[in-house]
Amino acid sequence: MTGRPVALVGGVTTAFGVRPTTWAEMAQEVGAALFRAIPTLRAEDVDSLFVGAAEPERFAFQSHVAPLAAEQMGLQPHRVIQRTELACASGQSAIRSAYAAIAAGLSDIAVAVGVEKMNLPSMAEANSAMGCVMDRPWDGPHGATAPPFFAMVAQRHMMEYGTTEEQLAAVSEKNHRFANSNPHAQFYAKKFSKEKLLGLPVVAPPLRLGDCSSMTDGAAAVLLVADKFVRKYTETPAWVRGTGQYSDFHNLANAGSLTKWTGMTHAAREALRGAKVAIGDIDFAEIHDCFTISEIVEYEALGLCSPGEGGAFAADGRGDLGGDLVVNPRGGLLGCGHPLGATGIAQAVEVYQQFAKQVPVARQVPDPEWALVHNLSGSANVHSVMVYHGGGAS
Amino acid sequence: MTGRPVALVGGVTTAFGVRPTTWAEMAQEVGAALFRAIPTLRAEDVDSLFVGAAEPERFAFQSHVAPLAAEQMGLQPHRVIQRTELACASGQSAIRSAYAAIAAGLSDIAVAVGVEKMNLPSMAEANSAMGCVMDRPWDGPHGATAPPFFAMVAQRHMMEYGTTEEQLAAVSEKNHRFANSNPHAQFYAKKFSKEKLLGLPVVAPPLRLGDCSSMTDGAAAVLLVADKFVRKYTETPAWVRGTGQYSDFHNLANAGSLTKWTGMTHAAREALRGAKVAIGDIDFAEIHDCFTISEIVEYEALGLCSPGEGGAFAADGRGDLGGDLVVNPRGGLLGCGHPLGATGIAQAVEVYQQFAKQVPVARQVPDPEWALVHNLSGSANVHSVMVYHGGGAS
Repeated sequence: MTGRPVALVGGVTTAFGVRPTTWAEMAQEVGAALFRAIPTLRAEDVDSLFVGAAEPERFAFQSHVAPLAAEQMGLQPHRVIQRTELACASGQSAIRSAYAAIAAGLSDIAVAVGVEKMNLPSMAEANSAMGCVMDRPWDGPHGATAPPFFAMVAQRHMMEYGTTEEQLAAVSEKNHRFANSNPHAQFYAKKFSKEKLLGLPVVAPPLRLGDCSSMTDGAAAVLLVADKFVRKYTETPAWVRGTGQYSDFHNLANAGSLTKWTGMTHAAREALRGAKVAIGDIDFAEIHDCFTISEIVEYEALGLCSPGEGGAFAADGRGDLGGDLVVNPRGGLLGCGHPLGATGIAQAVEVYQQFAKQVPVARQVPDPEWALVHNLSGSANVHSVMVYHGGGAS
Repeated sequence: MTGRPVALVGGVTTAFGVRPTTWAEMAQEVGAALFRAIPTLRAEDVDSLFVGAAEPERFAFQSHVAPLAAEQMGLQPHRVIQRTELACASGQSAIRSAYAAIAAGLSDIAVAVGVEKMNLPSMAEANSAMGCVMDRPWDGPHGATAPPFFAMVAQRHMMEYGTTEEQLAAVSEKNHRFANSNPHAQFYAKKFSKEKLLGLPVVAPPLRLGDCSSMTDGAAAVLLVADKFVRKYTETPAWVRGTGQYSDFHNLANAGSLTKWTGMTHAAREALRGAKVAIGDIDFAEIHDCFTISEIVEYEALGLCSPGEGGAFAADGRGDLGGDLVVNPRGGLLGCGHPLGATGIAQAVEVYQQFAKQVPVARQVPDPEWALVHNLSGSANVHSVMVYHGGGAS
């Protein structure tokens, strides 16, 4: 990590869910919310815009969405404007790009926005779009879309380690409970006991409806600025201290172990090294619980517990308030829904709001100093990690 | 421009044209070519990959193409991996992202690759994909795809300034002539006199077939590295000295003048300011001649001539070898074809090869020192400019 220090100085999300709004309308909505949330932000000061969106070409029948978002948000970026795409991790990719541009001196004040419209009149069309995320000519014909792939991970984890459906449900219960404190979550004010979760229909065995994140419409935006501009916008910056990514395969035939996500271990190590901290220093983490089994494998890949102990880690509440660290206090993808390009941005909004102590007490982490954010994409073949510090001074 | 100096130290393209190859096969082909062209490049030293692709979701039915490209190229990026999309300027966007990551210290050795597969069995499908680049719900119903839009620009330029079809043909003749020295160009070894061009069928009046760039399959890749690694790869680096972008509208109803591309003027000014040079210092330029009228308006937007004089600038050979500066020696989009995401990368390959004096004498610019590269996207609503220096020392 060289270059200028960069901080995230504010952020917002729209409501997440099944929404009667277009891609462009959500971009406008989240832009207006950002300006309301940061009263000192002036449109003419924003020199760069980074748009995280996974598949507007398929979900919204619109390409070239960066200038569309700029227009809807009332921005005229004159230094950098681009969309970044990394499937389910497109949001964090936009933030990383904004970070790099500012650290390199290409930008002073940047907006990273994530928008995804997934619910279409024809859900067959939407599902076909989702199928494009995997290796379509080789893995697609075998039915390897997201739920079957992560179901295979769960089956293998159960076989190797004796992981149980009850342990999967523990992840879902925690994240849905946290989502109960988040009015923008898709499953806000919906109660899911473990018993209820274990009675929901099976999507791909052993994964039930409550083990799967949803097709969600939503948007989120954050403001990132160079160190000298931070105090203009906030007293509680979230400093970007480390980033890492790792890609080790695309075609499933080239995947290593289904249950050991070494790519995540590499990416987290790179991000923690940049921040000069260890995983034990992290106070809370937003990690990619696209399915319950994902969060369990991720506990292990992060080194929070040994391989095979992820299920027990969940069931014992070690990722809950009062546990080893708090995992997914926002409500995760399971509780909030998963509008692909918006998810990574919404995770960062939670980091900012946790540091600023702006979240309801039901999910507030006590005096958090360090946070880790993780996005995976595709068949867990790319892992993206960022580490933030809420210490205040640069 | 702060952060570490960054140089482009090599690059290659595949053949451009109507090719019986898939997206993935072209990624593999251009990766192999890159390793052949730079014998000291080892896959394990490449820490980052930036993929420029405009619409693989529509043209190749594949999303999440960054790890697909990594796999096909034999890379395992562990610091940054992403696709960047900015429609017809996706390629330069990938290069800018690589530049920013290296300058910020996030990456040391990065590959930027552009791949586009545009020719499909159903060209109606391909044309529908192209329609997504414009504002689809508002401009699409009025037929505002690329050829009609740029035809309106041409009609207006003719009305305001008396620009002629012969002046348009002068641009096409020059760029097709340069493409005759480029074996990878789609129109290599095809002869186009002005007379022949003026007899070709009209696509959208006044634009004839020879005034329009093509639907093209192709790929291109470049290697960018931090200053301390440059000499490992080349003796003739192309240093990135300035970058600028500008976006001022999306919906055509919000466009200003059709014939004054002030966004390009802003972007070029930003890039030239970064490089601390003036437009008069530029020895050659690769600019976005998606249509002949584009190059004429761009002469004016760059300040190479006054508004309205672009047609005469072309007809008088001021953008030709021996003129004020050489414009599009590679053959441009008109001569090489326009595989959207690959175009911006191929332009940068030409910059590297011109500085290294590796191109045929028919298009070699004498002792070039400064180069400017321009990509536009959509309805000329986003302009992207980079300035390179071939001076050798950092």
